[in-house]
Amino acid sequence: MEKKKHKGSVVERKKEVLSSLENLGLSIYEQIDGGQFPSITMPSRSTENINYDPQLRQFILGDRRVKRSARNIRHLKPFAQLVWAALFSNELSSQRKTSTLRDVYYSAQAYEMTFKDQQESNNIITDLETVLGFSREDFNIFPEERSAVFGDLTIEYTVPGYEGKTMDLTSHPDGVMIGPALTSAEFVKTKADKVIAIEKGGLFTRFIEENVHRKFNALLVLTAGQAPRATRHFIRRLNEELKLPVYVFTDGDPWGMHIAMVIISGSANAAHLRELNTPDAKWSGVWATDIVNYKLPTDPLDEIDMKRLLELQKDPRYKEDPLWHREIKTFMKIKRKAEQEAFSRYGLTYIVDEYLPAKLEETR
Amino acid sequence: MEKKKHKGSVVERKKEVLSSLENLGLSIYEQIDGGQFPSITMPSRSTENINYDPQLRQFILGDRRVKRSARNIRHLKPFAQLVWAALFSNELSSQRKTSTLRDVYYSAQAYEMTFKDQQESNNIITDLETVLGFSREDFNIFPEERSAVFGDLTIEYTVPGYEGKTMDLTSHPDGVMIGPALTSAEFVKTKADKVIAIEKGGLFTRFIEENVHRKFNALLVLTAGQAPRATRHFIRRLNEELKLPVYVFTDGDPWGMHIAMVIISGSANAAHLRELNTPDAKWSGVWATDIVNYKLPTDPLDEIDMKRLLELQKDPRYKEDPLWHREIKTFMKIKRKAEQEAFSRYGLTYIVDEYLPAKLEETR
Repeated sequence: MEKKKHKGSVVERKKEVLSSLENLGLSIYEQIDGGQFPSITMPSRSTENINYDPQLRQFILGDRRVKRSARNIRHLKPFAQLVWAALFSNELSSQRKTSTLRDVYYSAQAYEMTFKDQQESNNIITDLETVLGFSREDFNIFPEERSAVFGDLTIEYTVPGYEGKTMDLTSHPDGVMIGPALTSAEFVKTKADKVIAIEKGGLFTRFIEENVHRKFNALLVLTAGQAPRATRHFIRRLNEELKLPVYVFTDGDPWGMHIAMVIISGSANAAHLRELNTPDAKWSGVWATDIVNYKLPTDPLDEIDMKRLLELQKDPRYKEDPLWHREIKTFMKIKRKAEQEAFSRYGLTYIVDEYLPAKLEETR
Repeated sequence: MEKKKHKGSVVERKKEVLSSLENLGLSIYEQIDGGQFPSITMPSRSTENINYDPQLRQFILGDRRVKRSARNIRHLKPFAQLVWAALFSNELSSQRKTSTLRDVYYSAQAYEMTFKDQQESNNIITDLETVLGFSREDFNIFPEERSAVFGDLTIEYTVPGYEGKTMDLTSHPDGVMIGPALTSAEFVKTKADKVIAIEKGGLFTRFIEENVHRKFNALLVLTAGQAPRATRHFIRRLNEELKLPVYVFTDGDPWGMHIAMVIISGSANAAHLRELNTPDAKWSGVWATDIVNYKLPTDPLDEIDMKRLLELQKDPRYKEDPLWHREIKTFMKIKRKAEQEAFSRYGLTYIVDEYLPAKLEETR
């Protein structure tokens, strides 16, 4: 079945972002016009106000709010910085240029706006996300990292110079980079019925070479370690807009497990946002129990790995599904870890011929 | 002027690789057939045998040779491992599958060939490179890392399923990933007259958005930090096959400087190879003197940066061109470093409008 997507969601969203920026400016203007000191109120992101919501299966912010007021001399600087960040984001969005957090930090100096260090400017950008309820990628501030996608999906660009051009994501057999242009593209059509996300570049290439996209009717996404935010947002869009189930394959260790978890439930740092995680995505392997069942070659878990497992055990995101607890316990018992490539001990294509179909079935 | 390249160089090279593997097998077979213990002789890669060649502007191996003989009981294991590595490389190449160093390590177990750890299997692959005079990418063992390219170059794929298909490297405005498929593609045509290599992903995107490829008639290559081997080989091919001069832009610190140097002169680890560096490439910035001249926002050089500068000062690769010495000295004097993004203090497009043309002219 060929799915056709009603296009326009990206363009619609861009308009919403611009109008939310405009509204912010307007509210400040009106306060000043009314003879008041202008202020901005937003949910607090302090640790006490971050709660895990089992319904949404992600962290959310509670009811506490903070107010930045130009009346308060201690607020004056962060207030001005926040207004500048909104101005700069508006310029980026309306001029259709992209930027990075690092770039924002230096760009401030062109406006004689000073930040103590990059940490300070990063925080202000997060404030702006919190105020507007959009993520910084929505106002064209992108991460440095790039990952990739491959498979039967036709997209349509919305970036300048490429508007209306389409691209089939099987065009380049090394995979198509997920950068600002792909992230802001509309989905036109796909025959795929699932998404398989893969941690490692070598395995991503193996999957393409072995035609996993065709044999399993799948879009393949490379996370390249911890998935960049733009990639997590992209995975969510595939899940939401195209209704494709998502399966995540990582190394069999606490770090791989957490790569899957962040795709599924997001991070506490992004408790103020809703569009960076995919609650229905599944962690399909490599599980600790796979290490046992498939008799994989392993390395010992070191002290840092063990410490990480103890942290994960206490993490509310890991408390929902008994699967995670079973796997954490098994890791602790066997005290071993295994990489995705470990399946090559049974031959290069074993992972595609045997392991992948078994795990897709098991985690369906 | 449109350059057309006589195609066939990649296919030709693949044939050479396969026949060098075949010759290796044949020589072992003939030795056994002649009643001798088989042996393999290759240049030594010990430190004493690695010399810097000012003519070639890279490290090369001297005259010392080592022999691995099946007669010597201590050689027996590495000899068998090397023969297995050749067998496995031959399988990869003839089946047209790619692999990674990590995959090679695990794959050995499918053949009941044991390696103590991955370091041991990596060494054996380097031995095989040394014996054959081809780099491991030639026999389909690729790095995990992926970088990207963008610009007016049409390539023709040689990988299975894509043979004969062409691709214009401006097709995807996020940049086209440099993986096994692109690395093994033939160059069909280009109108570009230079290559600009860039360290950072954010700046690579900025250059695309600002149409640097068109304004400066350039192919843009993202190195994404230290350029992966496949990317360095790709840059050399652009320089050699298409006769394009190469300009490298990095952060203004000892690490950025060395990213440029490795593109230009390669590394001591690859002294046994000739195709991973581009001796005529230029480091065009960010120089220490640029930091001074452009009054860039800076951070202090820390202890590790200073230590690195002292190491580079003693490195033979840095002794050739007075430019490097001047810049090392300037870094030591100003004790400051600056990132590429620092130019944003003069506005987002300053780096493209002012800095880039000035530096291209200066390092022509």
